[in-house]
Amino acid sequence: MTTAQPEPTAPADVPTAGAAPSLDDLRRAYADLQALGLKLDLTRGKPSAEQLDLSEALLALPGEGVHTDAGGTDVRNYGGLDGLRQLREIFAELLGVPVEQLLAGGNASLTLMYDTLAYATLFGVPGSERPWGREEKVRWICPVPGYDRHFSVCEALGIEMITVPMTDDGPDAAAVAALVAEDPTIKGMWVVPTYANPDGSVVTEEVARALVSVPAAAPDFRILWDNAYALHHLTDDEVTSADAISLAAEAGHPDRVLLYASTSKITFAGAGVAFLASSPANVAWYKKHLSAQSIGPDKVNQLRHALFFGDADGVRAHMRKHRDIIAPKFDAVTSILADRLGDAGVASWTEPKGGYFVSLEVVPGTASRVVELAKAAGIALTPAGAPFPYGKDPEDKVLRLAPTLPPIEEVRVAMDGVATCVLLAAAEAAAG
Amino acid sequence: MTTAQPEPTAPADVPTAGAAPSLDDLRRAYADLQALGLKLDLTRGKPSAEQLDLSEALLALPGEGVHTDAGGTDVRNYGGLDGLRQLREIFAELLGVPVEQLLAGGNASLTLMYDTLAYATLFGVPGSERPWGREEKVRWICPVPGYDRHFSVCEALGIEMITVPMTDDGPDAAAVAALVAEDPTIKGMWVVPTYANPDGSVVTEEVARALVSVPAAAPDFRILWDNAYALHHLTDDEVTSADAISLAAEAGHPDRVLLYASTSKITFAGAGVAFLASSPANVAWYKKHLSAQSIGPDKVNQLRHALFFGDADGVRAHMRKHRDIIAPKFDAVTSILADRLGDAGVASWTEPKGGYFVSLEVVPGTASRVVELAKAAGIALTPAGAPFPYGKDPEDKVLRLAPTLPPIEEVRVAMDGVATCVLLAAAEAAAG
Repeated sequence: MTTAQPEPTAPADVPTAGAAPSLDDLRRAYADLQALGLKLDLTRGKPSAEQLDLSEALLALPGEGVHTDAGGTDVRNYGGLDGLRQLREIFAELLGVPVEQLLAGGNASLTLMYDTLAYATLFGVPGSERPWGREEKVRWICPVPGYDRHFSVCEALGIEMITVPMTDDGPDAAAVAALVAEDPTIKGMWVVPTYANPDGSVVTEEVARALVSVPAAAPDFRILWDNAYALHHLTDDEVTSADAISLAAEAGHPDRVLLYASTSKITFAGAGVAFLASSPANVAWYKKHLSAQSIGPDKVNQLRHALFFGDADGVRAHMRKHRDIIAPKFDAVTSILADRLGDAGVASWTEPKGGYFVSLEVVPGTASRVVELAKAAGIALTPAGAPFPYGKDPEDKVLRLAPTLPPIEEVRVAMDGVATCVLLAAAEAAAG
Repeated sequence: MTTAQPEPTAPADVPTAGAAPSLDDLRRAYADLQALGLKLDLTRGKPSAEQLDLSEALLALPGEGVHTDAGGTDVRNYGGLDGLRQLREIFAELLGVPVEQLLAGGNASLTLMYDTLAYATLFGVPGSERPWGREEKVRWICPVPGYDRHFSVCEALGIEMITVPMTDDGPDAAAVAALVAEDPTIKGMWVVPTYANPDGSVVTEEVARALVSVPAAAPDFRILWDNAYALHHLTDDEVTSADAISLAAEAGHPDRVLLYASTSKITFAGAGVAFLASSPANVAWYKKHLSAQSIGPDKVNQLRHALFFGDADGVRAHMRKHRDIIAPKFDAVTSILADRLGDAGVASWTEPKGGYFVSLEVVPGTASRVVELAKAAGIALTPAGAPFPYGKDPEDKVLRLAPTLPPIEEVRVAMDGVATCVLLAAAEAAAG
């Protein structure tokens, strides 16, 4: 994560340049924006049609007559709870985990994460004294800003969320350590280690080591390590995620980390393959419960993916094609923000090196107003509180921008409109 | 279900024909069987490779450039918790339910059933006073013999199972009524309405009406109506399943029935599409909880299936091809049983008009012995207690035969071997 600007403040608090537009100017600019009658959407981290086209060959794979995997198994029939080894080998290399500790599942890592916490609630995890659902209270650390669907899983399962701040190097490990040291009700935390949603930060090896090492009062403390963007680079600086599973084992907490990934933003969102990796004990625990719920994943789709990629380098080459399509959209976002807001002192934003989001911080108390203004001008933004548990941003200042789905021309128009809304909201706030 | 023979008894209890083989004769026959060095498997209800070949075209569908559904939605991207309407319309017709009340999900109805009971345990269902997991005890009616994976779901979720007998017309409705009238801990029951696993019985309209009407002490009593074999006919007498959802609404219990089905034994086992249908309130309840667990099912696979079938008649025509392949295997099973055991008075069996199984009743106390003898002769049978909760057949007399997977020649050899084992086990029992 690169924060391009200092902490934003209301215009009134900073020396205003002579050229700063007045509230009336901004109201006129906003009226002009509304007059355009836009209908644009920056709400969700969906791949664009052009990105989906990169995987179009999948739609005719594996092809008639091709229905056995490298081991000779007929993928059309029942069985194989672990998923296709041929595909797991590819992603074991990419994710840096032993293939024996990697499961390939259905179409969504969200489901694997939900099921992990649902199993924990119903049955407990290795090391639990009882099912989490029989604890008086279960709490969970949510680094913020974060991913709204993580928070929805906790909320659905009655897990109380507490926040720690994100830093440029991932979650604030000292804040985590302070929370978990004495409180056995805190059973775990979310981490998006690589190009986090939404702030783009990358967990350093040092922070990873700190998180997996921290002494926790709960004997069954877990880190759900959602490496959703492990391979989703936007620059030549292709970071390698810290190997949290090995680091946890070294730190004497072998069962602390469960890692998730998927091809949702590699091939087809919703028709890809999801992965879970963890310690042997956690994998055995997961499979034990999964065995009552499933006879096995869709092996045909797994073979389809294995044939499409060929090997790990095939995935890497494929991801560079994604980058070619979406990096210019991210550039458009940050360059328009710099042009329009660079001198105004009312906003800061991230310049991510990967992932799917730009995080935009506006004047505290104005994020909801920016979303409201944008909506009235035909630009849909993610609700202001979305990156926070219960949808509540305590400072009402963080906006998540998702530029991958619209064509680049629309991204430009939308971002220019967003900039106008940010300025107007800031000026309104300054005017009181 | 047709029971081909009277209730079996040990040979000693029936008039023995002069030609009845002695224990020594049977031991010699069994030794000859062992000498064949067989390696055959009648354990699981898997489709054969020849059946899977019927759907081979799926492996190249939808085809490059084909990625929108009939409504214009790009199936490659996220979204759509209900599943593809185009496919739901086909199966709404086949299952006799309104398309608005039918969800298309992932690759396994088992997962939909598990998730239904997991949601019930975690959150309760419409009408529940509290989550089932917070009840002191939750009990569930299991008609026996039944499907082992149903029982595994209950066992995994800590739901205590109680049994009622199956009849030729489905579960014994009077026994169900007696159980549920006064006992609010009984929260529901399993029903396999069409060509039940394993006894092949079909729930009549009368029994369906009785089950959905029965007054239950639990206000949130549910019937999980697993119509796994709705379309899996073996004869020209293609039964239509009772419309349990409508019957339940008519009886004043609109939320009592949840119906499940899948294409696992229509297209590819493990790479098909599963369905859930119920009342509007139950569907909304299911989707509410699903929305935390999933962004939506694999719509590409759903489009693939919709294009492959075309319409409901396409599915019906496809199922007749399955029948052409597997009906002769069922004929082989029942004709060999008749030839070898018809005069012995030691066994009875079903002659199912659909589904995947033949249920064979042997002399009480000898089913496990038959499985043991068969195994030692290289013939794998489903464990003797499998069709009963906790794997325990109180009379040790029911065997489930699954003839679809092996080639017909192997079915013949295996069944001849099984007959020898049944006779020997009966003679051993008679000898004391």
